Amino acid sequence: MESYVAGIDVGGTKMLAVALTEQNVVRSEHLAPRPVGPEATVEQLVELLAAMAQELDARIDALGVGIAGAITRAGAVQFSPNIPELVAFPLRDLLRGRLDIPVVVDNDATAATWAEHGSGAGRGVDDLLYVALGTGIGTGFVLDGSLYRGAHGFAGESGHIVVDRHGVTHISGVRGPWEMYASGNGLGALARSRAMAGSFPAGVELAGDAAEVRGEHVTRAVHEGDADALELLDEFASHVAVGLTNLVYVLDPAAIVLGGGLVDIGDPLRASVQHAVDTTLLGGAYRPQVEVRLAELGARSAAIGAAMLARDER
Amino acid sequence: MESYVAGIDVGGTKMLAVALTEQNVVRSEHLAPRPVGPEATVEQLVELLAAMAQELDARIDALGVGIAGAITRAGAVQFSPNIPELVAFPLRDLLRGRLDIPVVVDNDATAATWAEHGSGAGRGVDDLLYVALGTGIGTGFVLDGSLYRGAHGFAGESGHIVVDRHGVTHISGVRGPWEMYASGNGLGALARSRAMAGSFPAGVELAGDAAEVRGEHVTRAVHEGDADALELLDEFASHVAVGLTNLVYVLDPAAIVLGGGLVDIGDPLRASVQHAVDTTLLGGAYRPQVEVRLAELGARSAAIGAAMLARDER
Repeated sequence: MESYVAGIDVGGTKMLAVALTEQNVVRSEHLAPRPVGPEATVEQLVELLAAMAQELDARIDALGVGIAGAITRAGAVQFSPNIPELVAFPLRDLLRGRLDIPVVVDNDATAATWAEHGSGAGRGVDDLLYVALGTGIGTGFVLDGSLYRGAHGFAGESGHIVVDRHGVTHISGVRGPWEMYASGNGLGALARSRAMAGSFPAGVELAGDAAEVRGEHVTRAVHEGDADALELLDEFASHVAVGLTNLVYVLDPAAIVLGGGLVDIGDPLRASVQHAVDTTLLGGAYRPQVEVRLAELGARSAAIGAAMLARDER
Repeated sequence: MESYVAGIDVGGTKMLAVALTEQNVVRSEHLAPRPVGPEATVEQLVELLAAMAQELDARIDALGVGIAGAITRAGAVQFSPNIPELVAFPLRDLLRGRLDIPVVVDNDATAATWAEHGSGAGRGVDDLLYVALGTGIGTGFVLDGSLYRGAHGFAGESGHIVVDRHGVTHISGVRGPWEMYASGNGLGALARSRAMAGSFPAGVELAGDAAEVRGEHVTRAVHEGDADALELLDEFASHVAVGLTNLVYVLDPAAIVLGGGLVDIGDPLRASVQHAVDTTLLGGAYRPQVEVRLAELGARSAAIGAAMLARDER
C-alpha cells in the first residue's frame, strides 16, 4: 500500500488540504470552509485528513499545517491576524493528541518557501528569499540550505518593516510599513487613486466605478496590454522593490521567488520588479544580479510545503 | 612552545592586530597606520604578523583579517567604502601565497559578531543580531548557532536599508537609509541641529561652537548627566530602533548586541534603545522581549573575531 503525507493550509475563511506522494505529486485535494472557533478548527483538520485517507484508501504518515501569523517553534499559534480567536493555541500538541502520526504546525509563508525550494521556482537555491504578495505580505527564507525560523519561530514577518517612517498610518498602527504599499491591498489602493485621478480609465471600465477598482482589475488590464495598467505596475513594482532591496542588504539571497495571489499578473510583474530591484540596489556594479522569479506552485504552495515539512519529521 | 592565532582589523587609516591564546586571551597587540595601496597593505599585514610572532617568540598558526565592505566568500575585497583602492582584490589568496598558514578574510562586522558571540556579550545566544554603531552602521548575524554570510558573502549590509523613502538623500545616493540617522554621523547631525536651535547648550559649551558639535560631545554631556543630552539620546534611540525593529521582524533574534564607537555612551544608550525597541515593536504583548546589550570587547572585537574565525580554519 502506498503511503502519503498531508498538508493543510488554514486561512481566514478556507482550508486547503493536499496529500502528497513520496515524489511530491498531489494525489488528493480538498477545500473546506474554516469553521469558527479553535475546537471546530481542530475537528475540521482531523476530518479533512480522514477524508483524504479514505479517498486514497491509504495510510497518511504525517500531517503538516500552515497558518498565517506568529507560530512558535513548538507549533503553537501565538497570534494569527486572519484567525484572531487563536491566541497562544497549542495546535500541534492538540493534533498530536488526536492523531497517531507526526504533526508539524508552521507559518504558511515558511511552508510555501519550503515547497518552492524543494519542488518549485527555488529548486537548488541555498539562499532563497520567498515573498508572498497577497492581501498582506508574508516572507520566508532558506539560508545556507535550511529553512530559517528565528529564535522564537517569528522570523520573516517582513511585511511590517518600516520603509516610510513619516508615511501614512497602517491598520497595524505603524506608519509606513512595506505591506501597506506592496501587497494586494496596496495595489488596489494605488489603482483606485489612479482611477480617481483619471489616469486608469480601463480600470474604471472593468470595475464599473473608480471607487470599485481593485488589484484584479489591474491584472486584467495588464493582460489586455493596457498602457496605463503597465505604468501603474511599474510604480507598484517600485514599492515592492524598496522592501526587497532592504531584504537583499540584510540577507544577500541568490534569488527571490514571488508568490501569493499577485503572481496571477504573470511575467509583466516579474519583469517590472526585476527592473526595479536592479536599478534600486546599491552597488549593482559589484554584486551579481539577484534573480526575481515567479512561484510555480500557485495557491497550493503552503499546503504542499506543510506536507513536505511533516515528511521531514517522520 | 605555545601557539597563537592572529587577527587584524584593517580600517581606513589604521590597522589593529592581536594575537590570541587558545583561551581567546589577547597576548600581543599592535596598532599601525594603514599605508595607501593594495601591495603596501598586504606588506603591512605580513609585517604585523611577523612582529607579533617575534614579540611572543612563538608560532602563529593562522591569520584572520576583518575589513569593512563587501567581502566575497572567497575572501576577496569586492568593494570597501573605507579603502576605495581595493576593488575585486583577492586579499585572502595573496596572503595565502605569502604565508605558510591558513588565512581568512571577512567583513569586520561579521568578525566582530563572531567575537561577541564566542566570548563577549552574545555568549550562548544562537540567534544573535550584532549592530556596530560607528561612523556608519555595520551588522552581523549568528543564526541557528552559525555565522550567516549570505549567498555571496554580502549579508548584513543593513546600514543601507531604507526607513524613510521620502527622506533626505544620503551620500550613497539613496533616500532615507537607516545609517543616515542611526550612526555616529547621524548622532552628530542630530546634535548639531539641536545645538543650532538652542536646545543643547551643554554641547555648544563643550564644542566651542554649535556648528562644531559632534557625537563625542553628546557622550560627554550624557556622562555629565545633562538633561538636554539625555533627551537628544532618546530621539537618537528612536532612529536606532526603527532599523532594529525592522531587523527583528525579519530575523527574530533572541538578543541584540550594540557595538561600535557609540558604545562609549554606555548604559544610557542601551537603556534608551531597549525602551525604544520595546515600545516600537508590533505585537510586543505576544512575543518575548528582545534584550539589548552592550558589546563587551570594545574596539578590538573585529580583530579578535577575525582571529577566532582563522582558528576555525586551521
